[in-house]
Amino acid sequence: MSESTIGVGLIGTGFMGKCHALAWNAVAATFGEARRPRLVHLAEARADLAQTKAAEFGFAKATEDWRALIADPEVEVVSIAAPNPFHAEMACAAFEAGKHVWCEKPMATSREDARRMLDAQTRSGAVAALGYNYIQNPAIRQMEELIAGGAIGAVNHVRLEMDEDFMADPDAPFAFKNGASSGYGALDDFAVHPLSILWRLAGPVASVMTDQAKPYAAREGRNVETHEIATSLLRLANGASGLLVANRAAWGRKGRIAIQVFGSKGTIAYDQERMNEFQLFTREGDERTQGFRTVLTAPVHEPYGLFVPAPGHGLGFNDLKVIEAHELLRAIDGRESRIVTFETGFAIEETVHAMARSHEERRWVDVAP
Amino acid sequence: MSESTIGVGLIGTGFMGKCHALAWNAVAATFGEARRPRLVHLAEARADLAQTKAAEFGFAKATEDWRALIADPEVEVVSIAAPNPFHAEMACAAFEAGKHVWCEKPMATSREDARRMLDAQTRSGAVAALGYNYIQNPAIRQMEELIAGGAIGAVNHVRLEMDEDFMADPDAPFAFKNGASSGYGALDDFAVHPLSILWRLAGPVASVMTDQAKPYAAREGRNVETHEIATSLLRLANGASGLLVANRAAWGRKGRIAIQVFGSKGTIAYDQERMNEFQLFTREGDERTQGFRTVLTAPVHEPYGLFVPAPGHGLGFNDLKVIEAHELLRAIDGRESRIVTFETGFAIEETVHAMARSHEERRWVDVAP
Amino acid sequence: MSESTIGVGLIGTGFMGKCHALAWNAVAATFGEARRPRLVHLAEARADLAQTKAAEFGFAKATEDWRALIADPEVEVVSIAAPNPFHAEMACAAFEAGKHVWCEKPMATSREDARRMLDAQTRSGAVAALGYNYIQNPAIRQMEELIAGGAIGAVNHVRLEMDEDFMADPDAPFAFKNGASSGYGALDDFAVHPLSILWRLAGPVASVMTDQAKPYAAREGRNVETHEIATSLLRLANGASGLLVANRAAWGRKGRIAIQVFGSKGTIAYDQERMNEFQLFTREGDERTQGFRTVLTAPVHEPYGLFVPAPGHGLGFNDLKVIEAHELLRAIDGRESRIVTFETGFAIEETVHAMARSHEERRWVDVAP
Amino acid sequence: MSESTIGVGLIGTGFMGKCHALAWNAVAATFGEARRPRLVHLAEARADLAQTKAAEFGFAKATEDWRALIADPEVEVVSIAAPNPFHAEMACAAFEAGKHVWCEKPMATSREDARRMLDAQTRSGAVAALGYNYIQNPAIRQMEELIAGGAIGAVNHVRLEMDEDFMADPDAPFAFKNGASSGYGALDDFAVHPLSILWRLAGPVASVMTDQAKPYAAREGRNVETHEIATSLLRLANGASGLLVANRAAWGRKGRIAIQVFGSKGTIAYDQERMNEFQLFTREGDERTQGFRTVLTAPVHEPYGLFVPAPGHGLGFNDLKVIEAHELLRAIDGRESRIVTFETGFAIEETVHAMARSHEERRWVDVAP
Repeated sequence: MSESTIGVGLIGTGFMGKCHALAWNAVAATFGEARRPRLVHLAEARADLAQTKAAEFGFAKATEDWRALIADPEVEVVSIAAPNPFHAEMACAAFEAGKHVWCEKPMATSREDARRMLDAQTRSGAVAALGYNYIQNPAIRQMEELIAGGAIGAVNHVRLEMDEDFMADPDAPFAFKNGASSGYGALDDFAVHPLSILWRLAGPVASVMTDQAKPYAAREGRNVETHEIATSLLRLANGASGLLVANRAAWGRKGRIAIQVFGSKGTIAYDQERMNEFQLFTREGDERTQGFRTVLTAPVHEPYGLFVPAPGHGLGFNDLKVIEAHELLRAIDGRESRIVTFETGFAIEETVHAMARSHEERRWVDVAP
Repeated sequence: MSESTIGVGLIGTGFMGKCHALAWNAVAATFGEARRPRLVHLAEARADLAQTKAAEFGFAKATEDWRALIADPEVEVVSIAAPNPFHAEMACAAFEAGKHVWCEKPMATSREDARRMLDAQTRSGAVAALGYNYIQNPAIRQMEELIAGGAIGAVNHVRLEMDEDFMADPDAPFAFKNGASSGYGALDDFAVHPLSILWRLAGPVASVMTDQAKPYAAREGRNVETHEIATSLLRLANGASGLLVANRAAWGRKGRIAIQVFGSKGTIAYDQERMNEFQLFTREGDERTQGFRTVLTAPVHEPYGLFVPAPGHGLGFNDLKVIEAHELLRAIDGRESRIVTFETGFAIEETVHAMARSHEERRWVDVAP
Repeated sequence: MSESTIGVGLIGTGFMGKCHALAWNAVAATFGEARRPRLVHLAEARADLAQTKAAEFGFAKATEDWRALIADPEVEVVSIAAPNPFHAEMACAAFEAGKHVWCEKPMATSREDARRMLDAQTRSGAVAALGYNYIQNPAIRQMEELIAGGAIGAVNHVRLEMDEDFMADPDAPFAFKNGASSGYGALDDFAVHPLSILWRLAGPVASVMTDQAKPYAAREGRNVETHEIATSLLRLANGASGLLVANRAAWGRKGRIAIQVFGSKGTIAYDQERMNEFQLFTREGDERTQGFRTVLTAPVHEPYGLFVPAPGHGLGFNDLKVIEAHELLRAIDGRESRIVTFETGFAIEETVHAMARSHEERRWVDVAP
Repeated sequence: MSESTIGVGLIGTGFMGKCHALAWNAVAATFGEARRPRLVHLAEARADLAQTKAAEFGFAKATEDWRALIADPEVEVVSIAAPNPFHAEMACAAFEAGKHVWCEKPMATSREDARRMLDAQTRSGAVAALGYNYIQNPAIRQMEELIAGGAIGAVNHVRLEMDEDFMADPDAPFAFKNGASSGYGALDDFAVHPLSILWRLAGPVASVMTDQAKPYAAREGRNVETHEIATSLLRLANGASGLLVANRAAWGRKGRIAIQVFGSKGTIAYDQERMNEFQLFTREGDERTQGFRTVLTAPVHEPYGLFVPAPGHGLGFNDLKVIEAHELLRAIDGRESRIVTFETGFAIEETVHAMARSHEERRWVDVAP
């Protein structure tokens, strides 16, 4: 392979598959310095769809057999954007074939599968990144730098809310996501996102006390098996107290991930629905002019300027995936990187499993270190 | 006494004492229909201060002996705005003398005292109101009417946050509110406010799972005995899940009481720092134009129009106390009223005590019905 | 008269009459130091209404003859809240009787009447204040102090918007305010408010270029004679450029007075619909954390603390009138005061008349100095 | 050429050149149905930079001679993102060579050049689009559909503000944009953007009354020749009144394009700094729940869903350019399209020239029809 390119395979062409494709198309033009991806191979369960999407996304080859894609010697890194139950098998196969992996979150649908994926990666020595793209937002990165730099002092309290409303309609039919096979509900579907951000801002969770609730017990006469709402008390490893709530039935919320981090010198707040800004309060200066300031992202907040050289012009959801692709390429090149590794991803999912156990046992549960 | 006036006594001239005085001065001019209060007697521990404040506030007589005030036959209703430890003795004395009572929250510093006050009131047959003035906001009243009328369907989830920052400075000296004699901390100081609003919007709390935290363990070398932060999972009597957090150390928050109520058809949100508006989302109409609407309070939201006949012009904190005074007068006249009675106030405080017990015992605790 | 009280007469009991009554009832209790007003005499065109309102508002005497009120030797200061066409006659009579005057805005319905009022006041030596209560907001006062102190550098550009929607309905019947006898329309009804604020923040207007528009030409078959919308270019005496717009037909705006002041070092913004906060941007500090900060009013912003000792708890529209009453009492006592004098009020109205002339003549017009 | 692809040439690799490159890379993957662009040729004044950028952006050939690019038979459409003074010559050459053109705004630095470009395009019959990407925002498109569908009734008043702060620092050195050769200043640099949006929402401007101002007369001892601030009264062709302001020296504003459109039934508002939402007020329904609603863009707002299938997740500035590329491809294919044509673009620039004339002559100026 040319040193200046890298061969990419993509499995899956749905929401996140397309998002990966857009990222692979944009990363070189955006970041300049990175190795230019060659879009080698695309896999999709239906052969005709694979062909169509390969043409649209710019991939050279198409297949309905993801194993063929992994076996393709031109493919050096594999984007896994297939349904969650397939993640483990695909990732393990890729690692065995010596490929790097970019896998959508969550890692897997069971703790065991996730563990197996982590082990396979460790054995292979390949680079693996999970698709927690929200943390790639220049706003989040800036918040992280501010907190690390002491701008709000020692963190003593956090609040995390993630809300959407696609499960809010009581009259909607019974869906795949209402069955137990899809997971716990909001807990694994949503909570991992704010937890991945929390990880960057204030570190891991030490113990949890969780409650899950069903706003609607049944749909179309069938019992709903998942919980659309999860609420949790948190204690972080650093001693801070906290709250987390995830709600898939929150009318009017569309992509809300609201974060509040309180410290001994100030407070930082953020809402994903207004992803190009964050709120900062510090106790500094004249008390008559203190207040939460709304900071719009700008070229001073890396890597915003590689997208737009003017401040306040706004990045979008898909741009975060481009940054993630770049961070993955940096990791593959052995450079410092902000990807969420399988190790961290596994720890985040352990937190979620601890929450589910806490709900069942109605008691505080420690998160395995 | 004249049928068209009512004799008022006021005990205390601090923050809330002044607030009561302003309300007694304004209520007749604002509401017209109400009996005009005669400001008869004012009590304050220091005799000279009693004299000065009586002149400023417009009271005819002044005393440093609150018992003299209660004994004054011209006094028909007693405003109790003295420090919390005195509430029980004053209120019980007033009831025994056959006076109506308007008592600042919380009722008392112990569950026993509060119980005693409730019993004394029941025996006397007098009217008693607690100073939970936030519920008198026309915005809150409108939210209550909307929820009761089904605008957001069945309530299935609630979130309550109350935050200020007067305990946020780690370098501030040890204060009265840092000692155990002042109570639990944020729990009794703050949580009663959002709970009083919740009571109106979605009814009582059935069980709680609470955690309390100390952002700063010590001040001036002395151990801080109270908890500035309280977090709690809630289950309401109606089955809804919920969260409550109270934080006296939340830098940048000044008078935040943020409420979110989620239902099967919509969502309502409110923040006391912008007390003249609320947010409403309903699933009705064209999906392309759905969104949270910011409703500014207006004459259509009773009793706003008695303060200002033009919409969007804004009431203030003290105006809520005027409404409360009016509701108290209505109750005294035997009319329908929105005061927080001692019975409800006691139930709210029971919820707080259950939270404290939950924190200690690290388990879910049912609130006594 | 006692040195510690002042006798008050009030003419008019509508929107602003009630507002004056509330202010006179509250000012002593709020500010403490001020002379306590004695509510002596109330005048209202209908005798029975005068009686009823005198009882509600707490005035000792009632009359349907405003001249009797002015002649009452116990009356030392006269609140004029009667319809605008009566202002001139009432104010002149009050000045001739040696009374101080608190007159609602606008001064008069013609430039000549306003001039006559100013002359009468000058001859009498009495104190006269106009009811531009918005400038009494602690938020506005703080903005003024910040600008005067150089926080945003030299002011080079301003924008003023005042919008309500009570004239927005095209199907509403022809009303008094649609006839030429009521004035120009939005120009004199609204523009004086933002201009009074501008006066405090950046000084007088030097020249104007104005356009007026009618969103609806007719109502009920009658030609609408007033203009619900006025737009104007401004040049201030200090050289800054500016814009002003007033719109009584702005659907959804209820009490909007939006102000933006731009300077060489920063920007200040304000909206009356959220009257307890303002926005401040300064170029100071780390560029990565610059942003507009939302400053909530607090005891550090005088005289907020005399209403509520806790920050972020909110004043209301009527509280501004209480501050205005206090400033008037200060002026009567010969102390420094922030009232809008008849001289300034006349200059503000001259600006409006220049705007009307500019509209007619379709050219820039200088405001008489 | 293959029917399923189209050959692209790009001139310029700065801010907008990169933006075009990103759009050409993303448009096929995003929209699927469109012809896939082949990135054929890139021109940049410096040969080495041309090479580097061609590699990064994915163009096959690189040149420092833009005429060679236009002569390249493989190039079917030319992106012109070179400095404004070159637009006319490049566009005319492209049209003569029978190429379609995608030209950044403004068309040209003089009215004559713009006229020449329009004539050349008309002669050639090629498709030409101007880079007014803001109008491609799904939020703007939705606003347009709402207004066209009568949601706010007949438009009677508009306000347009465009503000940034890159010229706000009085101590910054004299820059190219301070010299007369760069144009009028904020007027041509900024005003065209809100005018392009206004065109879609409420149609063309009929007459203008404009003032321009210099916040800082000199920099580094040299006279500043441009005006950083332009204010203008507007009358639209439909009779509505309006205001426009453009300010390059507005501290704290980063990418603000604030639009307010008032109609007989409602109001719509938008701010580019929060480009994924708009505000809508309609007079419909219960008055107690009326308010401005914040509508977050979503798949129901075309073509948002082709970027992200979930609502409220946010597009970015660069995504708007992808939509623009798609609309251009639609126009080339003879399908209905929302591009800003040279004809419309010329009319927008005529409005700006009329404004400049109005400023000079201090009078209302009609915009040539």
